[in-house]
Amino acid sequence: MNILCGVSYDGSDFSGWQVQPGKITVQSVIEEILTKLYGTKLKIVGSGRTDSGVHAFKNYFNFKLEKSKIPINKLCYVLNNLMPHSIRILSAREVPETFNSRYNASRRIYEYYISIGEVSPFLRNYRLFLKKNLDVEKMNAAAKLLIGTNDFSGFKAVDCKSKNQVRTVYSSWVKKNLNEIIIHIEANAFLKNMVRIITGTLIDVGKNKNAPEIISEIIFSKDRRKAGKTVSPAGLFLLDVIIPGLDSASFNYNLQT
Amino acid sequence: MNILCGVSYDGSDFSGWQVQPGKITVQSVIEEILTKLYGTKLKIVGSGRTDSGVHAFKNYFNFKLEKSKIPINKLCYVLNNLMPHSIRILSAREVPETFNSRYNASRRIYEYYISIGEVSPFLRNYRLFLKKNLDVEKMNAAAKLLIGTNDFSGFKAVDCKSKNQVRTVYSSWVKKNLNEIIIHIEANAFLKNMVRIITGTLIDVGKNKNAPEIISEIIFSKDRRKAGKTVSPAGLFLLDVIIPGLDSASFNYNLQT
Repeated sequence: MNILCGVSYDGSDFSGWQVQPGKITVQSVIEEILTKLYGTKLKIVGSGRTDSGVHAFKNYFNFKLEKSKIPINKLCYVLNNLMPHSIRILSAREVPETFNSRYNASRRIYEYYISIGEVSPFLRNYRLFLKKNLDVEKMNAAAKLLIGTNDFSGFKAVDCKSKNQVRTVYSSWVKKNLNEIIIHIEANAFLKNMVRIITGTLIDVGKNKNAPEIISEIIFSKDRRKAGKTVSPAGLFLLDVIIPGLDSASFNYNLQT
Repeated sequence: MNILCGVSYDGSDFSGWQVQPGKITVQSVIEEILTKLYGTKLKIVGSGRTDSGVHAFKNYFNFKLEKSKIPINKLCYVLNNLMPHSIRILSAREVPETFNSRYNASRRIYEYYISIGEVSPFLRNYRLFLKKNLDVEKMNAAAKLLIGTNDFSGFKAVDCKSKNQVRTVYSSWVKKNLNEIIIHIEANAFLKNMVRIITGTLIDVGKNKNAPEIISEIIFSKDRRKAGKTVSPAGLFLLDVIIPGLDSASFNYNLQT
């Protein structure tokens, strides 16, 4: 059988999602707990492979096993009793054998939170703190230029291993809410550090170091050096993952799709 | 000269306020940074000596030195650049030589936050999570019975070292705001674990395990066994400290007092 789980986690405690030798990652902790619970080596596939320190309000993973000794409607409860409080299972249900959390996910939505003002000790792992205000209108104009299907090589980490750098950005905007600036980006998929480099670039626009058109220039030139710096992972959250056929609210997977 | 600082900290990273051999405490981190900055061994006196894992929105400490090489109006900025993000200096100013943060503080205000529902990975260090709702009206009626000058021996930790267990509670209430329950207590001072034991006792009242009058019974009998359990430090915050003569908002200490 194939089981799909929704999961939320505080990335501060982990070296990202993906298993890495000698590191504590979200995937390694979940796999260890599942392996202990079922008494057989289990591996999971995640929808979003978040970097070290990046959080998830909602991510998904699936895993396959012969038969679950735990009724599927009790699994969420059982798993949360075994997980650290930094990882919470939101939901669990059976999906078709062919389902794969990575390939069935059609879109990922990320938000980056910037707080204008002094560092708060309670939000230190969840925000980027900047002393001076930013021009949010200019940042929003720049963000709009990301929308479309483009080669985003100019916004990828030097060690990004993706063979294809073309991604489709469906929506991209910047808003201010009191002293918080929210950067929202929805795309089919992202390159390594893409949202953090985009955020660094948008901050430079907000500081009037660059005009909004810098975004188009970077897309066109594919020149990473023209983009801003890779900002801290602390402010970055995987907000949601869109899986066609999956009713996210009631978490009913339509087996007919 | 005598310098008074306001300070906010996330207690999750520390073994409480007070210096303890081999432990990282808020006091030890601040003293180490001040000692390095001024090149002479410095000790601080805190207004509230919070337990391990307990947070402070606002606490105060003072320290004495011959002469500050840093202008007092720049000290806050300089210190925050040296402090970890889990400790933030809110303010710094000169106070009379006789001033002592512990003895000049006349009242301490604590709040305890309970969240009804599932554990949030992002609030795991800042809330107590309970699955079932509590009877907040009964809890509030119980909280009111704490007000007054009483021997609070029934609400102290077994290893509490205070010689005198009489404290004056000035205000005490319980409110609900959406899915959060707030327990608020203001007193001249507190015994070890007092707020956490009171919270455990109020939770038992909210669960209808005990009537509100249990509070008076515990005060009268001084019997710790009648009180509730010592709840997690995660939900506890030192909200503020009242220092007569100190205008907390503008942080002007009236030197005439």
